[in-house]
Amino acid sequence: MKIIDCEVIDLRVPTSDQLLGSDPFHKEPDYSSAVLHLKTDSAYQGVSVVFTVGAGTDWLCYGIRDLCQLVVGTTLEDFAASPFKLYRRLIDHHQLRWLHDGVFRMAAGAILNAMWDLWAKQQGKPLWKLLVDLEPSFIADCIDWRNIQDALTREEAIEILERQRSGLSARENQMSEVGPKAYCTAGWLGLSDEDILATIHRLQEQGFDSFKLKVGRNSQQDVARIKFMREAIGMKSNLMVDANQYWGVDEAKEHLEAFRPYGLKWVEEPIARDDVLGYVELAKTFSTASFDFACGEQAASPVIFKQLLKSGAIKYCQIDAVRVAGVNDVMAIILMAAKYEVPVCPHGGGIALCNMIQHYGMWDQIAVSGHSDTQLVEYIDFLQDSVEHPVATTNGHYVTPKAHGWGLEFVPEFLDRHRFPEGEAWKDRSPERKGARFEV
Amino acid sequence: MKIIDCEVIDLRVPTSDQLLGSDPFHKEPDYSSAVLHLKTDSAYQGVSVVFTVGAGTDWLCYGIRDLCQLVVGTTLEDFAASPFKLYRRLIDHHQLRWLHDGVFRMAAGAILNAMWDLWAKQQGKPLWKLLVDLEPSFIADCIDWRNIQDALTREEAIEILERQRSGLSARENQMSEVGPKAYCTAGWLGLSDEDILATIHRLQEQGFDSFKLKVGRNSQQDVARIKFMREAIGMKSNLMVDANQYWGVDEAKEHLEAFRPYGLKWVEEPIARDDVLGYVELAKTFSTASFDFACGEQAASPVIFKQLLKSGAIKYCQIDAVRVAGVNDVMAIILMAAKYEVPVCPHGGGIALCNMIQHYGMWDQIAVSGHSDTQLVEYIDFLQDSVEHPVATTNGHYVTPKAHGWGLEFVPEFLDRHRFPEGEAWKDRSPERKGARFEV
Repeated sequence: MKIIDCEVIDLRVPTSDQLLGSDPFHKEPDYSSAVLHLKTDSAYQGVSVVFTVGAGTDWLCYGIRDLCQLVVGTTLEDFAASPFKLYRRLIDHHQLRWLHDGVFRMAAGAILNAMWDLWAKQQGKPLWKLLVDLEPSFIADCIDWRNIQDALTREEAIEILERQRSGLSARENQMSEVGPKAYCTAGWLGLSDEDILATIHRLQEQGFDSFKLKVGRNSQQDVARIKFMREAIGMKSNLMVDANQYWGVDEAKEHLEAFRPYGLKWVEEPIARDDVLGYVELAKTFSTASFDFACGEQAASPVIFKQLLKSGAIKYCQIDAVRVAGVNDVMAIILMAAKYEVPVCPHGGGIALCNMIQHYGMWDQIAVSGHSDTQLVEYIDFLQDSVEHPVATTNGHYVTPKAHGWGLEFVPEFLDRHRFPEGEAWKDRSPERKGARFEV
Repeated sequence: MKIIDCEVIDLRVPTSDQLLGSDPFHKEPDYSSAVLHLKTDSAYQGVSVVFTVGAGTDWLCYGIRDLCQLVVGTTLEDFAASPFKLYRRLIDHHQLRWLHDGVFRMAAGAILNAMWDLWAKQQGKPLWKLLVDLEPSFIADCIDWRNIQDALTREEAIEILERQRSGLSARENQMSEVGPKAYCTAGWLGLSDEDILATIHRLQEQGFDSFKLKVGRNSQQDVARIKFMREAIGMKSNLMVDANQYWGVDEAKEHLEAFRPYGLKWVEEPIARDDVLGYVELAKTFSTASFDFACGEQAASPVIFKQLLKSGAIKYCQIDAVRVAGVNDVMAIILMAAKYEVPVCPHGGGIALCNMIQHYGMWDQIAVSGHSDTQLVEYIDFLQDSVEHPVATTNGHYVTPKAHGWGLEFVPEFLDRHRFPEGEAWKDRSPERKGARFEV
């Protein structure tokens, strides 16, 4: 099966009309995606998305289109024989690698993820099942070991995977209808107390017992909200807070002192995404607190994850599906987390991130670290009417995805309506808004 | 003075014809630049460049063009009143910031650097002199303190700058003809022993006594080359090695054991650019060795520099002029280095990097850390016929730059000849080479 063409779509939803998903930094996000369709000489196409928050989606589309030159003309059989060859061809391209992480690594991830999607479809399997069925040594061959072996060797990775072979089918059966446990953000910054209560009750009725709250801007308000949430959910439910990198290290220490009494499970992104030593310091300072630290949704490379895991600075590993270079990088991170016994709690939300991370949750719990309800997978049902295979939960757990590949197909009308800037959703907006250049 | 338009040029030089500047990762670099000209309603224009190694220059051009929307229509007076306002407008753009570092931060740096250039020109000063003449509190106001205050506070930065006020004019006078001390790479990987000897002799005749050697691929060959270089230059000259991130942490330890006997001054980029804890470990392992560690040319954010400096992991701080967000970020890094008493030894080479870093060397030695010959500024005379104001050395030191602004103006014929892909230098090349997609 040959890759013969690519289509890259700049898809943007004007979610900032309702301030959906806003945080202290991303004040008016328009949930967006660079959507890649790799066309083949068969009926199959490889699909992937890179989530963004509006302006800049075009930068990613530009990069992905350029990188497609490195995959158009190749075959699925080449890829399936060695996914690492394509990884190297992209990530280690001797000129493009100068572009560093960020746009470049995300664009490379888009190509890799679309190829993995294609392979899973051709095999007639959801992505998680494709991964579960791979040989341990094949998985090890997919990974770039150069910069991470001081934390995890190839041999250790294979050992971890071999160890889970016993009981693997039982776990696969067990999880074939009910997937990983899910958690939800109930406390968005903009919501009133009443809104939050209503959200909590709705989620509790659906079987959720783990809730997250956004914090950061005002210490007194944060503490009041934490108290309020804790009272609403009771002591038995999990309560987590997320500061979206709003603080410096000393500032974080100061704020977090006031968070000690409320039995928080984790504090997410208290400081900058690349401040490894800052995390080490926070972990030491709060070693006796109820909470541990979580981060990763904006960690740009496996090397950052390596340090956070090896040092014990984070106790929850929040992989993102589209920030690093696709399945290959994420598998490396999940295996490192398994070695250091840090539960993988993937970052969801955006457009279609949950649709992707559920596969990683499945693979991790069936084939890598083993199933447990400490591995919470973020669940946000934003924009699920936009996709052919929406995520769903049952009794607070993901419903196991059955569609082949990632299951990332968008509803065609949705895709057409939100093409930027020519789609219906955008064409009557002011030029400033369309340019997404408005200051907030 | 109003910014009324921008021109962004994809400039590429087919340097891979001669394998100029190749290293283990960048096998056939075509030295390139995204060149930005900010046009004004006056005779002045703001110029900046972002160095790259070929493919991907267009990604940067795309991003810079997009970001120009945030500066066209503004005035130089607005910028000069608060350079930080523009910094925030770019780096913290509430949607674009999702793009992380890499292409995005480099593109933001291009805009900032061009505005600083414009300001210096309007003031009739070289960039270093503009910086030297700024009030300490004004400099502090240019800096993004959010994520670095645990290493350096605004107050400490002002104190450092105030302390250097005494003796500032004397240092400025002293350095107004002869600038910072320079060093050179004499041992490129591809060169023969004879070539290296000839290079060393030529450099020694020009007054150089500090030489760098590329290492990484083969331990035995590396050691033989180090011995050879040491014998050629004698024990009194400085010898440094650069591994360009080729090793993992354990691999680096193994290789570096064999480097102990040769009185090396520094080992540059032994491991990945973002592996802070790896650097901490190496520094501990080799605390008794002659050499210390140097890095920074590919460090993507001031937060990475903060950790490397605060932890004592690096003893030479290799700022790059175009990897982070321009003058604002670099000033923060130089000030942090001053606090931790780590000499700033900027990364040069590429196209026009030396033309930029000499200004930072000047500012650092006049106004921040004080003048000393431990602050070596990299010097490579590649492609200096391409610019109107080539860098020059005298007796192993930079000749102080006198042109206003950065002095980054290209010779017009050079610029035209190397426009990609339409310039004379490219138009008769094969489509693969022009696409820069060829595999190496």
